[in-house]
Amino acid sequence: MEEKARHIIDPAAAIWKDIQCIRATAPLVHNITNYVVMNTTANALLALGASPVMAHAEEEVEEMAGIARSLVLNIGTLSGAWIDAMVKAGRVARAKGRPIVLDPVGAGATRFRTECAHRLLREVAPAIVRGNASEIRALVSGGGGTKGVDSTHSSEEALDAAQSLAKEQRCVVSVSGSTDLIVSDGAVIRVSNGHPLMPRVTGLGCTATALTGAFAAVNPDPLAAAAHAMAVMGIAGEIAAEHARGPGGFQVAFLDALFLLGESDIRTRLKMEQA
Amino acid sequence: MEEKARHIIDPAAAIWKDIQCIRATAPLVHNITNYVVMNTTANALLALGASPVMAHAEEEVEEMAGIARSLVLNIGTLSGAWIDAMVKAGRVARAKGRPIVLDPVGAGATRFRTECAHRLLREVAPAIVRGNASEIRALVSGGGGTKGVDSTHSSEEALDAAQSLAKEQRCVVSVSGSTDLIVSDGAVIRVSNGHPLMPRVTGLGCTATALTGAFAAVNPDPLAAAAHAMAVMGIAGEIAAEHARGPGGFQVAFLDALFLLGESDIRTRLKMEQA
Amino acid sequence: MEEKARHIIDPAAAIWKDIQCIRATAPLVHNITNYVVMNTTANALLALGASPVMAHAEEEVEEMAGIARSLVLNIGTLSGAWIDAMVKAGRVARAKGRPIVLDPVGAGATRFRTECAHRLLREVAPAIVRGNASEIRALVSGGGGTKGVDSTHSSEEALDAAQSLAKEQRCVVSVSGSTDLIVSDGAVIRVSNGHPLMPRVTGLGCTATALTGAFAAVNPDPLAAAAHAMAVMGIAGEIAAEHARGPGGFQVAFLDALFLLGESDIRTRLKMEQA
Repeated sequence: MEEKARHIIDPAAAIWKDIQCIRATAPLVHNITNYVVMNTTANALLALGASPVMAHAEEEVEEMAGIARSLVLNIGTLSGAWIDAMVKAGRVARAKGRPIVLDPVGAGATRFRTECAHRLLREVAPAIVRGNASEIRALVSGGGGTKGVDSTHSSEEALDAAQSLAKEQRCVVSVSGSTDLIVSDGAVIRVSNGHPLMPRVTGLGCTATALTGAFAAVNPDPLAAAAHAMAVMGIAGEIAAEHARGPGGFQVAFLDALFLLGESDIRTRLKMEQA
Repeated sequence: MEEKARHIIDPAAAIWKDIQCIRATAPLVHNITNYVVMNTTANALLALGASPVMAHAEEEVEEMAGIARSLVLNIGTLSGAWIDAMVKAGRVARAKGRPIVLDPVGAGATRFRTECAHRLLREVAPAIVRGNASEIRALVSGGGGTKGVDSTHSSEEALDAAQSLAKEQRCVVSVSGSTDLIVSDGAVIRVSNGHPLMPRVTGLGCTATALTGAFAAVNPDPLAAAAHAMAVMGIAGEIAAEHARGPGGFQVAFLDALFLLGESDIRTRLKMEQA
Repeated sequence: MEEKARHIIDPAAAIWKDIQCIRATAPLVHNITNYVVMNTTANALLALGASPVMAHAEEEVEEMAGIARSLVLNIGTLSGAWIDAMVKAGRVARAKGRPIVLDPVGAGATRFRTECAHRLLREVAPAIVRGNASEIRALVSGGGGTKGVDSTHSSEEALDAAQSLAKEQRCVVSVSGSTDLIVSDGAVIRVSNGHPLMPRVTGLGCTATALTGAFAAVNPDPLAAAAHAMAVMGIAGEIAAEHARGPGGFQVAFLDALFLLGESDIRTRLKMEQA
């Protein structure tokens, strides 16, 4: 009990413990993700200390999911065959008790994306759904409001949808925004770290999802794992922005910040509140 | 009349107006493009201020093209199914009056590429064709002369081909090179900005095409949109080269330059001539 | 005879000669490779001075392989159709006497990967197989031991496997590690250049494979070509690490180092031994 209480009152220590565990064990994170971000999310996972693998062929996804510590599903450039592979991999991960993180990129922008996201929710039951506000709203209301893959809503505008989705799917919902919301059936954590340059770099939402997969690989509590990932994203983003003139330099500095991240960075910068 | 004349005599002002409009409205640019450059062209569009979306599935391209302000088709790593998706998306964009930009990457290098490019010219009638000199020549003469995806001709050697293609297809043809040629049936604009490091970075031609899509989304004149895009590419390239030791640093500085680009950069550096 | 002896006693001169030849002739290197690294390997080839092309469609791979100087096959994100395209391209390259370099990414991690790698060994007979220690061991023992795409063995632990594979397949086997082993039936070259940051960047193994393709395009001796590529990788990595705080800055500096690499860098840094 005391240990649990301590984690709640000292989230920086809990985050640091997870990071040390990722760096020590280099968990294999299996990603079935979109073409745009494969390179950058693999690099973010490596910089953090995890071991990424990208594999999507139906012939091998079940075997790969079976050896990985977590599975990240991202529909950013989806097509039919890839969704089938995601379902196959998801079933194996689920049977083995490995956490699944789903990023419903662009849900709401097209019916195909919304339907694929719903199919994955139904068939693989992810432990964590991580998206932007428009995507999370689209999963609940069934469509509308997303402009391509960028959000047109603030994260607070997705709070009701996130809570409803978390309850319905018995999962954690992690909504990125200037303040990130991490929601379970009963709890809401807010993370206010980050920097305005972040939406100007493609795929940082997908990177948040990938890092969530790394934290979920080492932390059995999906609410904590999702919150820790968003905190690390935001803190690394703040550090990166201090070394950057624009989104080009930011990307370079962001990977370096993930790699160099120390306990004091987290302790001095963390802005996390649990309601 | 006076306004129109002013644009011709003050192209820097016209370019700056387009950039401000892109930054203010963040137009959604739908890209069906190649695997090599998806990340870098998305980042260039974001750095400029546009909102990129990459989507290629036949199930959704029509819907995505319907909500986007412009459509960019790039055959850099084409395969049969993708060309079908490009045609579907192109028909929707055309029906809605949204500009289409085609990059015939590697046309001339293989028959498949030349034929796919011709099919797209025929079936989607792009407003702007943007390629290197060898590619543009290949579209007119029907083949030969390209070495993979790099040009073996100067842009001036493609002037006749560009003029013939522009007339035949009733489109604007934008030919990159040390001097860029932007050609319509009746006009030729030359842009001499740029830097020798640019061909040493993969996909900068594709980036030029993507940015042309952003300018076409806000400027209804395809000749001006294409010329403004090439000017911004060249000017950002010059600024980037001043901050770089080689092609690695160049890529970082190029995104920063797009992001930071100001009116005075354009006014002091622009080298544009209309014949 | 004297010239040949000189190359053995002055490997730095031989490497420099190859680099100059790549820069002077910009050989077209045809890559059928994975989505994760397409951009970064194309950029590394351009930075070195070669001309990369990425093309995988069955409709065009034979024609593209026919005009290229070498062919690089990489199964990092393989699927069935791509393997068929690799076989088609490989047969053309082989018929034309062009060197083929195979990277069996993740062989051993799944049966599908191991089997595809074996099919390619059998059907295209690569001149050079380039992988990490776990992958090379998996090709000989038939499976096991790979954690996703990262090696769990040192390169020395793959020496027997590399020698056996080299003999069986009549090819050169290039094993990356803190010391790289380049093995033919009868010779072993060790290259000890490199830096610990290199495994923290995704796709540097794939980059080594792509650069091996560039060296093989200009040097008819596959043992020398493979060794020269690993030496250049390691030396550029050492230079890059001196300019980097972490894996983000490393990637930028690595491309710049390849671009700026001079004879004295090679002469002062090379750590190559032939057994």
